[in-house]
Amino acid sequence: MSDHNDLEAFLDEAWRHLNRGAADSSSPARYPTFATVSPEGKPQARTVALRGASRPNSILEVHTDIATDKVTALEHTPIAAFHIWLPRANLQIRLSASVAILTGDCVDAQWAKVPPSSRVSYGTLPAPGHPIVDVYDYEKPSDRDRFAVLKCTVKEIDLVHLGKRHRRALFIAEDNWVGSWLAP
Amino acid sequence: MSDHNDLEAFLDEAWRHLNRGAADSSSPARYPTFATVSPEGKPQARTVALRGASRPNSILEVHTDIATDKVTALEHTPIAAFHIWLPRANLQIRLSASVAILTGDCVDAQWAKVPPSSRVSYGTLPAPGHPIVDVYDYEKPSDRDRFAVLKCTVKEIDLVHLGKRHRRALFIAEDNWVGSWLAP
Repeated sequence: MSDHNDLEAFLDEAWRHLNRGAADSSSPARYPTFATVSPEGKPQARTVALRGASRPNSILEVHTDIATDKVTALEHTPIAAFHIWLPRANLQIRLSASVAILTGDCVDAQWAKVPPSSRVSYGTLPAPGHPIVDVYDYEKPSDRDRFAVLKCTVKEIDLVHLGKRHRRALFIAEDNWVGSWLAP
Repeated sequence: MSDHNDLEAFLDEAWRHLNRGAADSSSPARYPTFATVSPEGKPQARTVALRGASRPNSILEVHTDIATDKVTALEHTPIAAFHIWLPRANLQIRLSASVAILTGDCVDAQWAKVPPSSRVSYGTLPAPGHPIVDVYDYEKPSDRDRFAVLKCTVKEIDLVHLGKRHRRALFIAEDNWVGSWLAP
């Protein structure tokens, strides 16, 4: 068990969960809630799958169909909030990230790794969120041109551990991730 | 099992989960992610506890310390997005709601029902999010004047069921909750 007064260990723990989430589909950190701001200025949130995590580069990676509303939102406000609750660890991870929407040749490597059975997640017709008459009035072809990688550069990490006494800390990229305790 | 092509049954199912979440602290709908927009226009998300749900009034209720950043956000943009993922039901519930921040005498009834052991959630000193030197440099007195009820009037409900074939529907208050299927 890490020293409760050790900021570095607290951040280490969060990244261990993020790395595991990116590597293991059964990890509780696999499916963060991803919040954005709509073009009308309203909050939005949905589940995403964490596809990559790199602490050295402060990057999280999410894959999406470019026809979804989260891409429309990110084109207007290229910032996302990630929210992860880890029940066994009693840990809430909150991240703020700037998001680049990558498509085309520069995501060839990621597309190559998408299993054929998952490629149908990119290309639904009509596009996700479009009204349809009956429940299954849609098709799911695979469309390489609709595949996008959301490259999320982490700017802030806010951790809350709910123990006998709660612990909360904030880590900021600009401060080189040194971290500081906050009142929870 | 409800008819998959029945919009009303789909919405019924969502409200069953919301009612259970409000009534039962072990329900998976008890702890939604609550997304807001900061005064700077950035997305924010955190866990909240669902304290009330009324389908006839289209109301969800959340309790908070008025000194938290979600209240600051809601004072600027009084809209919240709720996100709930129900693993056993394979159901994602997303709600958009307008939020009124209630304090003072009009929340006497709710305050009376907060157990003494939980009242310390309202009044942390220094206020939540304030920097502190050491991990436990805070106190948790109970402060009645910091207790607020977020009265969330639901405007839209977006449901996604991940089955063999996915189902997605949107229900809008202005349309009297009739609902329509969407491409997922």
